[in-house]
Amino acid sequence: MKNFADRLTGKIKDMNNPTVLGLDPKLDYIPSSILNHHRSEITDVSKASAMAILDFNMALIDATYDIIPAVKTQFAYYEMYGINGMITLKRTIDYARSKGMIVIADAKRNDIGSTAQAYASAIIGETDLLDGHSESMIDADAITLNAYLGIDGIDPFIRIAKDRGKGMFILVRTSNPSAVDFQDLRLDDGRFLYEAVADKISEWGAPLIGDSGLSSIGAVVGATWPEQAESLRKRMPHALILVPGYGTQGGDSDSAARSFTDSGDGAIVNASRSLMCAYKKRTDLKEDQFSTATRDEALRMKDDLNGALRRKFG
Amino acid sequence: MKNFADRLTGKIKDMNNPTVLGLDPKLDYIPSSILNHHRSEITDVSKASAMAILDFNMALIDATYDIIPAVKTQFAYYEMYGINGMITLKRTIDYARSKGMIVIADAKRNDIGSTAQAYASAIIGETDLLDGHSESMIDADAITLNAYLGIDGIDPFIRIAKDRGKGMFILVRTSNPSAVDFQDLRLDDGRFLYEAVADKISEWGAPLIGDSGLSSIGAVVGATWPEQAESLRKRMPHALILVPGYGTQGGDSDSAARSFTDSGDGAIVNASRSLMCAYKKRTDLKEDQFSTATRDEALRMKDDLNGALRRKFG
Repeated sequence: MKNFADRLTGKIKDMNNPTVLGLDPKLDYIPSSILNHHRSEITDVSKASAMAILDFNMALIDATYDIIPAVKTQFAYYEMYGINGMITLKRTIDYARSKGMIVIADAKRNDIGSTAQAYASAIIGETDLLDGHSESMIDADAITLNAYLGIDGIDPFIRIAKDRGKGMFILVRTSNPSAVDFQDLRLDDGRFLYEAVADKISEWGAPLIGDSGLSSIGAVVGATWPEQAESLRKRMPHALILVPGYGTQGGDSDSAARSFTDSGDGAIVNASRSLMCAYKKRTDLKEDQFSTATRDEALRMKDDLNGALRRKFG
Repeated sequence: MKNFADRLTGKIKDMNNPTVLGLDPKLDYIPSSILNHHRSEITDVSKASAMAILDFNMALIDATYDIIPAVKTQFAYYEMYGINGMITLKRTIDYARSKGMIVIADAKRNDIGSTAQAYASAIIGETDLLDGHSESMIDADAITLNAYLGIDGIDPFIRIAKDRGKGMFILVRTSNPSAVDFQDLRLDDGRFLYEAVADKISEWGAPLIGDSGLSSIGAVVGATWPEQAESLRKRMPHALILVPGYGTQGGDSDSAARSFTDSGDGAIVNASRSLMCAYKKRTDLKEDQFSTATRDEALRMKDDLNGALRRKFG
């Protein structure tokens, strides 16, 4: 199986677009035409809610799969709707993959070794069943992880990444304001905690560097922290960087560009709300033209990012 | 709604047993009589696997609910079986609650504020649905959390804990060997990272201290680290401590006792494999008497913990 970093960077180059479509669906993001359609299925309102989300997600994928290389599903927004939400998550992922998109499971899982193995099986691997055969449950291409438990909790994902061409993005510098609470703690050797995590990612990722020069063990670095992003890019020269925080959270394309390598690759920028809710800013379109608004915003974001990369790297 | 820490410590006192039954089911833990029964449902082997787990879990709950106050479900072992696994998780939690057990969702969730709100709704709160009403999905009594993202990612859980009498256990010192990788990093102010996390837990938890003198914002401290447990107990005098690592992972009752307050409360000790697989060590019982073996082991563990508490506190 081809190295994940090579697969992702190849697809970004083909489309000339380092964007991830973040599917973090809330009901108030969804156009009323879709909601009203499902309101009639009032016998099972949790199922109706989850089906409305699936319809919305599929329309957004249809609108962008030929111009955006990857999709990121934030598990929390599906777990919220219970079993029906998990069915929508699975069907969203299957649909994105059927359209050729690379799927990043934003699950931020973390646990001790034996349990990390179970999460790895669940999300990027396979599960052994009682008749002796194995089955993939989610089969995402990559997953986000939290490294507070150290290498024990990462190793099972690394083994599957090697075997199955999968990848992972480990939290280094998150996009939220209270990232500072622990990530900015200064160590006695002068590093910040987030720098110590970055150094481990470089070490762990070395054996998974592909032909692209990038490793399938990547990092999460928020677009809301441009200064830190600039230094982290140098600190982890081979890490693929997933950049949240562009758009609604306040990060701009110049900040996001800090996470790219000098050759203008090595990072992928997520946008969720600004793509999903693009229609809410369009007075010239009817609400049921929401997918046109998302496609227009995706093209604008692509130009915005490529413009920032040209300004930075020429 | 009554404070979570008061509810849990009240139930521990009533039963004189600070044990959590950890339900982390793997297929090779399950007696062959149950597996064989479900092997016949071969048309949907993922469902059959998940149903075997549910049968096993329910038998273990039946065998212990009158002597063990709480159950801890490790989400990874259910997510492994996909949608069917999540149905088994939900039914296990509902069943444990119907028997009066307190339910701890071992999910180790973590994310930025808006997403943490979604996880909090999913696991300890309620979700707003498209007809305007709200519904609980998992409705656990407490959840495990990872604090790497700082207070933003914890706040939504705190709000629900206050409103609905729920609780949380934040990872401080995990039971696994590579806990040292980041948790033992020394800060420039002389503290270890895990001590800095502990200090924040004390600060965040102050407003949620109940009549028991304990807070609904608790901590996870592994029984495999007795020295650290001793100092963490002093550092977080009001934190309820969830202690994993007893039994198969190598922690003993004297190590676990380090996490209790001088009055012999304030902690609850998890055992998963040693309770679930107790039957594997019993040559005197038939395999289908597995629940007898679990009950015997639960009574032995109760005596073992109470003995250690008497040795320590007299």
